[in-house]
Amino acid sequence: MRWPRTGWAEDIRSCHHGTMTNLPDANRLDANLPVSNLLDGCPDRPLADEIFTEILARDGMRIERIVSTGQATPAEAPWDQDHDEWVLLLAGSASLRLDGAADRALRPGDHAFIPARRRHWVLWTDPARPTVWLAVHWPPKPA
Amino acid sequence: MRWPRTGWAEDIRSCHHGTMTNLPDANRLDANLPVSNLLDGCPDRPLADEIFTEILARDGMRIERIVSTGQATPAEAPWDQDHDEWVLLLAGSASLRLDGAADRALRPGDHAFIPARRRHWVLWTDPARPTVWLAVHWPPKPA
Repeated sequence: MRWPRTGWAEDIRSCHHGTMTNLPDANRLDANLPVSNLLDGCPDRPLADEIFTEILARDGMRIERIVSTGQATPAEAPWDQDHDEWVLLLAGSASLRLDGAADRALRPGDHAFIPARRRHWVLWTDPARPTVWLAVHWPPKPA
Repeated sequence: MRWPRTGWAEDIRSCHHGTMTNLPDANRLDANLPVSNLLDGCPDRPLADEIFTEILARDGMRIERIVSTGQATPAEAPWDQDHDEWVLLLAGSASLRLDGAADRALRPGDHAFIPARRRHWVLWTDPARPTVWLAVHWPPKPA
């Protein structure tokens, strides 16, 4: 796969380049209005692994940013989580399969709810630019 | 204020026109992968009021879409909520003031955590196109 590096900077809808400011500790938010941009700080080339960044954790809920650079879930190793998750595609593109449902291509703004213990796969992510996801994770459910 | 209607459809980063599919009931999500687009279904002109759409409510958490068309919070009537909120700007632009902090202009991808009982104002929202927010609301806190 050839990685068109220039394509990223040219597409303003893909990640802005800059520094990602993480917000792991809600207690740090008192002095000033905390703002950072979820599209900042994306890699400028494909990486071996996806990047997971915790944005906010509060009362058992976690809000996370995920940046994919062409990764996919192996067919034999689906995600199978013990908690509900809601995902929103912010940039790039991807395809999502939930066990027993039709595959769906995702564009920016598309969102999906993934119930606990529903096996699922990311079939592909954009090969030409970063794909940025927002994920909201509920607390785990009892087995 | 003159509303440049053609500007909306021309800016792909603003709302896509289409039908908003709400997802109020997680039980409806079993048969097929639920996907709808948070940028769809925006108005093509300024409205008197903002549009609030519940995307998902689960275990006391609410995920909501808000569409602004030029609205602002009156100086004498700040938001003063009994619960924590996290907001993410998805399209358009806006400025946010938290009591005691510097004003911040927001572009798509910018996010902010607003603690319970922190007074805040949306100083302005984009006059030329829809401003789309994602809001995550935690359960209310005891007084």
